[in-house]
Amino acid sequence: MSEKGILFVLTGPSGVGKGTVLKEVRAHKPLFYSISATTRAPRAGEQDGVHYHFMARETFRQLAEQGGFLEHAEFSGNCYGTPAAPVDEELQAGRDVLLEIEVQGAMQVKDIRPEAVRIFLAPPSFEELERRLIGRGTEEPEVIQRRLDTAKHELTLAPEFDYIVINNTVEQAVSDVLAIMQAEACRSSRVTLK
Amino acid sequence: MSEKGILFVLTGPSGVGKGTVLKEVRAHKPLFYSISATTRAPRAGEQDGVHYHFMARETFRQLAEQGGFLEHAEFSGNCYGTPAAPVDEELQAGRDVLLEIEVQGAMQVKDIRPEAVRIFLAPPSFEELERRLIGRGTEEPEVIQRRLDTAKHELTLAPEFDYIVINNTVEQAVSDVLAIMQAEACRSSRVTLK
Repeated sequence: MSEKGILFVLTGPSGVGKGTVLKEVRAHKPLFYSISATTRAPRAGEQDGVHYHFMARETFRQLAEQGGFLEHAEFSGNCYGTPAAPVDEELQAGRDVLLEIEVQGAMQVKDIRPEAVRIFLAPPSFEELERRLIGRGTEEPEVIQRRLDTAKHELTLAPEFDYIVINNTVEQAVSDVLAIMQAEACRSSRVTLK
Repeated sequence: MSEKGILFVLTGPSGVGKGTVLKEVRAHKPLFYSISATTRAPRAGEQDGVHYHFMARETFRQLAEQGGFLEHAEFSGNCYGTPAAPVDEELQAGRDVLLEIEVQGAMQVKDIRPEAVRIFLAPPSFEELERRLIGRGTEEPEVIQRRLDTAKHELTLAPEFDYIVINNTVEQAVSDVLAIMQAEACRSSRVTLK
């Protein structure tokens, strides 16, 4: 019904299950893959244009200045960003886009694309997020503690997003995300009557 | 997730299929039945409190003055209205309500309950609505013409509603209404994080 595709952003704290939910949403609905740009060096086996768009710091900086990213940030001395052009092409072709973006980046998208529909994936409780992060068993206690501190702050930002989906079970969260995507296509501002 | 139920209003021009869609939505989701109040005399077989709340004109008038109706209107010299109290009880109990209301009444609900989520059911095209109304074969041509004139006006009001669902097929329309109900429960303003 919408002539142009709708831009959806899925965000939430580290460990909440964004990747799993997005993977399952894709199993129900074919969706465009966004490939991030980064200034870090490729690791063994990583291909340019497949895993990342690898670019020089100066190229990244220029692209950022031209508004070429929907969001970008620096982590551990490397820049990462979501290139806007491929997303806009997809939307122009009438196809919806669902991007998985960290909370700070998702906040930036609101400024650059105020029409984006932003979904915050939240844990059933903070204690449950703690259990999930510890349960991974892959991180040092200090790393886990830092992530939990960040998550605590990020959870206070949830009300600024359009939707909050509680990840009680992956099945329910996926169903909620799909319902949001279907409902948003019916928003009266997006439907033209014949 | 919502503590209080959500009030949904389904509206659309005569002949668009509101009743059929609502019946199918109910088959997927148990929902409260709203019983309209009316000042007209009961017909054979009609029971008070089952088909309608039959009431004297003075009682109706007083209730309307006290804000006891979510919407009310006069047709052919009789008053009809949607009593607010049973709807509010249902919402307080944490259950969603989906009301089927004529377009003019649905416009009134917005003033009285601005938080209501209003869905406009539209035909795939005006010509299709024409075919459906004529196809019923139960009305005089003048009656059909009057309904089409009203429908033409009502369709111009569609953008004032929150959602527009095109009734291409009953199955698709029902799926859209259910998605809207599920998505609205995830609106960040309705979700409290633990």
